[in-house]
Amino acid sequence: MLVVLTGGTGGAKLIEGLAAEMDPAQLTIICNTGDDCVFHGLHVSPDIDTITYTLAGLIDEEKGWGVSDDTFAVLGQLRRLGNDTWFTLGDKDLAMHITRTRLMAEGFTLSQVTERLRTILGVKAKIIPMSDSRVETRVVTSEGEISFQEYFVKERWSREVEAVHFTGAEQSTPAPGVLEAIRQSTAVVIAPSNPVTSIGPILAVPGIRQALQYSVVNVVAVSPIIGSAAISGPAHKLMAVVGLEPSAFGVASAYGDLLNRFVIDAEDRSLKERIEKLGMRAVVSSIRVTSLADKQRLAMEVLALTQK
Amino acid sequence: MLVVLTGGTGGAKLIEGLAAEMDPAQLTIICNTGDDCVFHGLHVSPDIDTITYTLAGLIDEEKGWGVSDDTFAVLGQLRRLGNDTWFTLGDKDLAMHITRTRLMAEGFTLSQVTERLRTILGVKAKIIPMSDSRVETRVVTSEGEISFQEYFVKERWSREVEAVHFTGAEQSTPAPGVLEAIRQSTAVVIAPSNPVTSIGPILAVPGIRQALQYSVVNVVAVSPIIGSAAISGPAHKLMAVVGLEPSAFGVASAYGDLLNRFVIDAEDRSLKERIEKLGMRAVVSSIRVTSLADKQRLAMEVLALTQK
Repeated sequence: MLVVLTGGTGGAKLIEGLAAEMDPAQLTIICNTGDDCVFHGLHVSPDIDTITYTLAGLIDEEKGWGVSDDTFAVLGQLRRLGNDTWFTLGDKDLAMHITRTRLMAEGFTLSQVTERLRTILGVKAKIIPMSDSRVETRVVTSEGEISFQEYFVKERWSREVEAVHFTGAEQSTPAPGVLEAIRQSTAVVIAPSNPVTSIGPILAVPGIRQALQYSVVNVVAVSPIIGSAAISGPAHKLMAVVGLEPSAFGVASAYGDLLNRFVIDAEDRSLKERIEKLGMRAVVSSIRVTSLADKQRLAMEVLALTQK
Repeated sequence: MLVVLTGGTGGAKLIEGLAAEMDPAQLTIICNTGDDCVFHGLHVSPDIDTITYTLAGLIDEEKGWGVSDDTFAVLGQLRRLGNDTWFTLGDKDLAMHITRTRLMAEGFTLSQVTERLRTILGVKAKIIPMSDSRVETRVVTSEGEISFQEYFVKERWSREVEAVHFTGAEQSTPAPGVLEAIRQSTAVVIAPSNPVTSIGPILAVPGIRQALQYSVVNVVAVSPIIGSAAISGPAHKLMAVVGLEPSAFGVASAYGDLLNRFVIDAEDRSLKERIEKLGMRAVVSSIRVTSLADKQRLAMEVLALTQK
């Protein structure tokens, strides 16, 4: 069984490739929930949804989130009714949030709801939220503290960031199945996601980092950074805030003691030696993937690294 | 100030006419909430919405409920996600329920939310739910007790009904403004709505029937029945269940001590004498209205009766 730790869009690309290259029923995906937010009273889990939609073949490939060919009738009317609608929610996407919110109000946990929804949508891979407790990624800016979605979507990561913290992380526990999956895995992959705000919250849930440290299987990460910038999103900016070099080396150093294999882009081959001094093997590849063929090729390389 | 007691579709036709024939700001509409239901965790107030949509020019005229030209993307996806979707909810319509549910979860009352939504939608008439307490119309059938929506929509009023009751009515209180509106009104109109399940719940809220009984202004009702059947819906069936003659006479007898003017259809002119023996004036008109001109003509007749 392969365990993958992931955020949303970036990680989804590798996961799509992995699900195509192996038996997806052997895949357990542990998702960041630090970006979860309540919009219009509805519980939105952006990373879980992106992974679920990707594996269900529903994802809007162009945007990297949401449901393809979705419509926005509800959002338009919500706006007309005086609601703040800076967070784009499509109609089909809303059905997911409405169902999740209703089930959680009935007493189901986020992991139970996630399991039910992925099953209904025909997703063979297991998707588990990092925690059923509420852990919230908060971004401290010069103009005050905001949620990750406010920083990322509303402010389009334009604000100067002073700090990032994960409210509720200390009191949280891993969702049922998270530690078991890591312990029973034959290998672990850390997807090319933001190390600060996608993988960071997962590792901040007490027990998960330790389970990876004690793991004797191969742990392979793929860099989300090429050169000095993230393939997409603000990872490099946030890395600088938390004292990490905004580079593939910075990512490797963030995961330092957890990894034994790290995949970097050919552009960053000059970093290979520095990264290997951190105690891991650095593998040069082409990590900017867009076509399904690209994703499958990268997934095959990652799978090879998990095995040898 | 004119007060109108109403259910949904039937009453909305008269109210549309009234709002066109008088200053709508002088109109206070007290709405049945006995049909309110929670679908997918969202608070749906069918009668309030029908009246609001009608006065906002948003109503689907053909169906008599919902928003015109609405789409059903959310409902389709809710079905795909395993939800029971027998109650049709359009996308724009859902924005209303999502907003209402969110505001009520934040602590606003149904009447505060109703006021806010009608104002945002540019509705000049005041719309007040009969009560902010939960009063639920329950229909006892040979196969068990169900909600009014289950009886009306899911079962298409095909089941044999044994009794109708209004759970929570005894403990309920009129919403703020209901009794004040009746006391300050220059006349009251009871819309051509189902006397059992639309007007019945309103009159079951302690204080409302009494306020009408003590009222010294004209109280005018329009029959929802022509011959032995409702203009639309199951009013005649439910009237028989509660021991009322399924006719305009039956409606008049249900409202007996509250009314002094009752408008019946020309088809029912033979009932005029029997109705007038109940102590009210019976006025013969043409009450099956479909065009706006028809609605305005009936509204003008009703307004004349409120004044003289």
